[in-house]
Amino acid sequence: MSHAEEVRDLVRRWTEAVHRGELESVLADHADDIVMFDVPPPHRGVRGMAAYRELWPPFFEWQRSGAVFEIDEIEVVAGEDVAFAYALLRCGTPDELAERPDQRLRLTLGLRREGERWVVVHEHHSFADTSGPSG
Amino acid sequence: MSHAEEVRDLVRRWTEAVHRGELESVLADHADDIVMFDVPPPHRGVRGMAAYRELWPPFFEWQRSGAVFEIDEIEVVAGEDVAFAYALLRCGTPDELAERPDQRLRLTLGLRREGERWVVVHEHHSFADTSGPSG
Repeated sequence: MSHAEEVRDLVRRWTEAVHRGELESVLADHADDIVMFDVPPPHRGVRGMAAYRELWPPFFEWQRSGAVFEIDEIEVVAGEDVAFAYALLRCGTPDELAERPDQRLRLTLGLRREGERWVVVHEHHSFADTSGPSG
Repeated sequence: MSHAEEVRDLVRRWTEAVHRGELESVLADHADDIVMFDVPPPHRGVRGMAAYRELWPPFFEWQRSGAVFEIDEIEVVAGEDVAFAYALLRCGTPDELAERPDQRLRLTLGLRREGERWVVVHEHHSFADTSGPSG
């Protein structure tokens, strides 16, 4: 596999683990110093593996209630030793997806290569803010 | 300069050009196929240089009315040929900053190296969503 294919495969496996609520798989390819800009606060981001790990159980519960977390589109830019990916995901319950069919979770991941593997060091998750004049 | 220093310098110059409303400098280091996830919609992102260029004049007008666009903190991960940066910015009018002192604009940039220079191919801008239960 090329580096871009490896990153794409990592992100696909990660989204599936998020949906299925498999905590150890969700964390497996993440750095101890992960910095995640999540949809809600904290404004300065979720910092470090211990804080990142704590995020997931409530999200898994929501997924189990019938929500989806599916890649709609992904682009990967991978070099020798650093890569990033940006993607649009369907993320919501069937009712939410029906109500806002155009909405996507916007996801950006930053990765660095450590030995023979890729490690996620940064995540940025957001929805477009529809409360303003252009929403 | 190291690659990381070059990227840090590029982002610093870009934020200053955004604040001063210098359109050609804002666009100078960006790829024709730039994909930007902006704070407001479109949900699938602002795609391509022509659309990216159109964003800025209203934002410049707002900056000239007294708003700031200043890096508070930035981290850069730069490899041989690909890099990303993530940063927290103070972004708002003095009144807005006084009202929400902890709020930051969360910014992630993805870059690739073209010859002897870095080019921005992806931007992700968001504020944490404080409308939910954890806000």
